[in-house]
Parts: sequence; C-alpha cells; structure tokens
Amino acid sequence: MTPTLADRVLAGDPRAMARAITLVENEDPAAAELVRAIFPRTGRAYLIGVTGPPGAGKSTLVDRLIVALRTSSAKKPQTVGVIAVDPTSPFSGGAVLGDRLRMQTHAADSGVFIRSMATRGHLGGLARATGDAALVLDAAGLDIVIIETVGVGQDEVDIIRTADVSIVTLVPGTGDEVQALKAGIMEIADLFVVNKADREGADRLASAVEANLSLQTFQPDEWRPPILKTVATSGNGVPELLEAIWQFRAHGQPKQAARRKSRSEYRLRELVSHRFMHRLEHAILKPGELASIIDRIAARELDPYTAADDLMWRVIADGRAGSREGTT
Amino acid sequence: MTPTLADRVLAGDPRAMARAITLVENEDPAAAELVRAIFPRTGRAYLIGVTGPPGAGKSTLVDRLIVALRTSSAKKPQTVGVIAVDPTSPFSGGAVLGDRLRMQTHAADSGVFIRSMATRGHLGGLARATGDAALVLDAAGLDIVIIETVGVGQDEVDIIRTADVSIVTLVPGTGDEVQALKAGIMEIADLFVVNKADREGADRLASAVEANLSLQTFQPDEWRPPILKTVATSGNGVPELLEAIWQFRAHGQPKQAARRKSRSEYRLRELVSHRFMHRLEHAILKPGELASIIDRIAARELDPYTAADDLMWRVIADGRAGSREGTT
Repeated sequence: MTPTLADRVLAGDPRAMARAITLVENEDPAAAELVRAIFPRTGRAYLIGVTGPPGAGKSTLVDRLIVALRTSSAKKPQTVGVIAVDPTSPFSGGAVLGDRLRMQTHAADSGVFIRSMATRGHLGGLARATGDAALVLDAAGLDIVIIETVGVGQDEVDIIRTADVSIVTLVPGTGDEVQALKAGIMEIADLFVVNKADREGADRLASAVEANLSLQTFQPDEWRPPILKTVATSGNGVPELLEAIWQFRAHGQPKQAARRKSRSEYRLRELVSHRFMHRLEHAILKPGELASIIDRIAARELDPYTAADDLMWRVIADGRAGSREGTT
Repeated sequence: MTPTLADRVLAGDPRAMARAITLVENEDPAAAELVRAIFPRTGRAYLIGVTGPPGAGKSTLVDRLIVALRTSSAKKPQTVGVIAVDPTSPFSGGAVLGDRLRMQTHAADSGVFIRSMATRGHLGGLARATGDAALVLDAAGLDIVIIETVGVGQDEVDIIRTADVSIVTLVPGTGDEVQALKAGIMEIADLFVVNKADREGADRLASAVEANLSLQTFQPDEWRPPILKTVATSGNGVPELLEAIWQFRAHGQPKQAARRKSRSEYRLRELVSHRFMHRLEHAILKPGELASIIDRIAARELDPYTAADDLMWRVIADGRAGSREGTT
C-alpha cells in the first residue's frame, strides 16, 4: 500500500513535510484529515517562540540558534524546525527570498527544516496555520520547533505567548526604548534578548528592561526573565542564550503544562469559529447572499449585530432538517 | 423620559461617548443594543487609519494632524475623534498615561475626543472593539475619526486597511529600511509618511519606498501613494500631509465605497463567529466542560479538528429543541 502523506510526515520525509505545510497554509480540506492523523504523535517537540519589532535581527539570531542547537556540546545535537511567520509585502517577495537565503545556510544539514509562512491571506487564520505547521514538524520527530514572528501584533504575540518558551528580542538605537517597552510584548517574555548589543544604547536598553522587571514582584521559586545580550551577526552571546533556554526548560515544567493547555484552548476556539463560518458560507448561504447582506450593512439598512444574529440562527435552524454532510 | 445612552451619544455628549466606548471595550452585553441604536446614524465620518512600526512617532503625528484639522484655513474646522489602539504593557501603564498627556494638549477644545484602547484582553476582538468605538464617534457627529495602531500585526493592519484612507508611517535611522518594507504594511498604504525626516537616512528611506512603488504598474487614473516627509515634533510637513489626505479623499470616491463594504464584511464575519462562540460557551456547554475538552486535546486523546466539529454540531443540534433565548 502506498504510504499516505501523514505516514510520510511521521517518517520525517522533508518533501512530505513541505507538502503538508502547504496544505495547511492554503487551508486545503485535506489539511484537517492530515492533522487528525498526525495529532496523536505530536507533543514531543519543544516549542521556542521568538518575537520582537522589525529590524531586531530575529532571523539572524534564529540562524545562530540553529547552529548552536546542532553543535552544542552540552546535549546531543538537536534536530530543528523553523516556522518564520513573515509578513511579506507583495512588492518585495521577502518570504521566498528569505527562505532561499536561509535554506542555503543549512542546506547540507538534514537535521534542519526551515519554512516561511506569509501572514497575508490568512484573515484570522494565522494562528491556525502556524499551529498546524508546528504540529507537522513535531510529528516529523524534530526535537525543537522555533516559531519566529516579525511584528508586535495581537495574533503574532498570541502565537508566541503559547510557546513552551517565549523569547522577546529588542534592539538598541531606535532612540525609543519606551516605545519598545510599550509594545505589548513585555509581559510575554520568559527571556529577553538585547540583540545588536555592540551598538550604542544597548546598556541603556537593558537597564530600561531591568527597571521594568524590578517593578514586578517575583516569588522565590518564580522564574525571573533574564536579559541576555547578543550580537547575532557574530554569534556573540548565543551560547549563553541557549543555556538560558535549557535553564528555563528545566525550571518551567509546571508552567509548560499550563502553556500547552492554553495553546490547545487557543487552537480549539479559533478552529470552532472557523468551522462554523465555513459551514455558514458553504452549506447555508446561497452565492451572492453574503454580499447582499454586506451591501445592506454598508447602506445602513441593517446593523451588523442583527445581521450576525440572523446568520447564526440560520445555521442553527438548518440543523433541524440537516444531516452532518458537507461540513469538511 | 430620561434620554438613553444612545440618545446622549447621538447628541454628542462626551461623557456618554466615553461610557459607550467603555461598554464596547468591556464587551458588555449592552454594547450590542447601543450599536444597534446608533448604527443607522453612522457612516458620515471620514475614517483615517494611521499605522507603522513602534517608535515611528505616530502619536505625535496624530496630535499635529488634529491641530491642522482644527485650524486649517482650506476648510471649515473639522471635529476630530481619535482611537489609539495602544498595546500596553501591564508594567508601564502606557495607555492611561498617554491618554492623559494627550488629553491635556487638547483639553480646552470640545471639538476633539481622544480615547486609547488596550489590545490585551481582546483575544480576537480587537477589530470589533475598535470598529464599534469608531461607530460611537461617528454617531456623535465627529467629522473625522482617526484610528491609530501601534504595530505591524495582522489585526492591526486589517483595522487600518479598511479605513477610508490608510497612512503608513515609517521612520529612518533603524538601519533596517528593508525590514520596514518587508513588514507587510507596504501594500495597504494610500499615503506614506517618512516621519522624523530631519534624521539621517530619511532620504534613503524615502528612496527605498519610491523604488518599491516604481516596481508597481499604476493606471493613468489610479492613485499613486505619495511619500510625504514630516517632522511631527515641529509640525513640519503636516499641512502637506493634510492636503494629500484631502486629495485622496477627492480622488478616492469609488475606492471608498469598496472600502466601506470590506469594512462591513470584516465586521460581520468577526461578529458572527463571536456570537456563535458566545452561544456555545454560555448556552450549550456546562461549566468545566470546555476545560475538560481542552485537557483531552492537550493529552492527545482528542484532536482539535474533531473536537471543533463536535462542538459546532452540538450548537446546531441544540437548535432543534431550542428557542432563541439566551443569545445576547
């Protein structure tokens, strides 16, 4: 019997992994079936989330982390998957280009799998696509899965927040340390990294983060986020960062269980509402019907709350007559 | 008869407007009723979206825009509402402080209303809360509503994308112009602003944006986003920015209708799925039931797709027996 895509993913076949992530990214109907098949074999990989403002040097830092994970003498070499959530402009074609550059660096290493995912076209589905892609890499047996998000947006932060360890990368020299601290990413950090630490202002930035931390009360046995300085371009400070990740991992076992639950909850909520909208659009509404409701809202003939309730009740009322067909 | 909150909002009472936005922000059940009541009286305000990376000086720029809108000789003084979507750290308390500082600047001016909204605690509901807050200001009769988002995240970009005019603010001196261009906000701009244009690198940044634009083909009658240079701290370039906004507004009438439809669609989709989740959690599931499903997912006994389908069908099946009670 020909092995299924799920079988090939579970066997760690890189082409199957790439294909599976494409299904997930395109919201292909086959993606649900795939995730169902691989899901029982997931949960082993350690999920590292890396975020921070644009220009913080996250990609370079992640590349250095990969090298450290592959060669660190403290542990056996870890296999690594990376999902880079890359908000690409259609002008620059950044995701594809970035992918190629990064793939080349690790091309000879079969223990590394890197994939970029664009944020556009994932209206509300970025978390689902990223989460499913991480499951694919997890199921394929990779030890470490790194999710890297550019940006400080809500979805991006939520993705990182539910990782096993959340790394917030900051960069000196914008002259706006306070803005960086206000960017809503301070509270999610398990580890802070001040990257480009050879630049002027690195110490000032680290002090500002430290000052913020000192306003918080930490229990004696509570993890206090350390502030690490790195120069990703040269690799300085990266071994110390990796060491801090292992320390957090060793320290954070109870926290990790809670994180994994909140990750499951986040996924489940997103998925339920996605499935519901899919049913509404593909099994309940006639072609053009949604557009005409939207026209009426835009014309102020109908308010969005009333419209939303009506749509919800049409799906529910349909259940009286309907079977469970056409729901995938 | 005592006037309702909606009546008072429609009469432009600032205290009622503040109260209404709090309802919206807290997802108070009364918010839906309020929006239903005011909705027919909305659609008159012109919606200006301002976004860009942290540290780009958006708040200062918006403050200068307010002054220009209040005093511009080209038009009658416009009344202005501002919703600043402020991803605040619980450490810094930035939103409240920022609010106070900004309120003081315009305190004597009854034609200006400023309100910050924090992004945290709005899991997936940021767009809804922001959209409803804009409706409140619109209904209160303000001529211009400015929505300002810090960040380059998906939700934040989607909010700005559906404004009547979208302004993308960039800043020189991070040394990472390419990163800024990659940040997924290039394609949404109707106007580019290079703020802090007195800094080194401003011309280089403007050229990089220009080079990106020149890769695109514009039809003869198509709007080509201009690149404006401002120094928000001194106000330099702000009159030209305002002029460009009026030009876009005059040019963009057909585009505006399409934007308003896509804004309605975005709101409707978000609202339908929110109403559905609310019904699931408050009318269908027993206390603790969702938590136990999440535990089973986290333990890999149940996959999220199967769980999501089961939950959807429980809501639908409930419709067979149920009435439309308990849905608000």
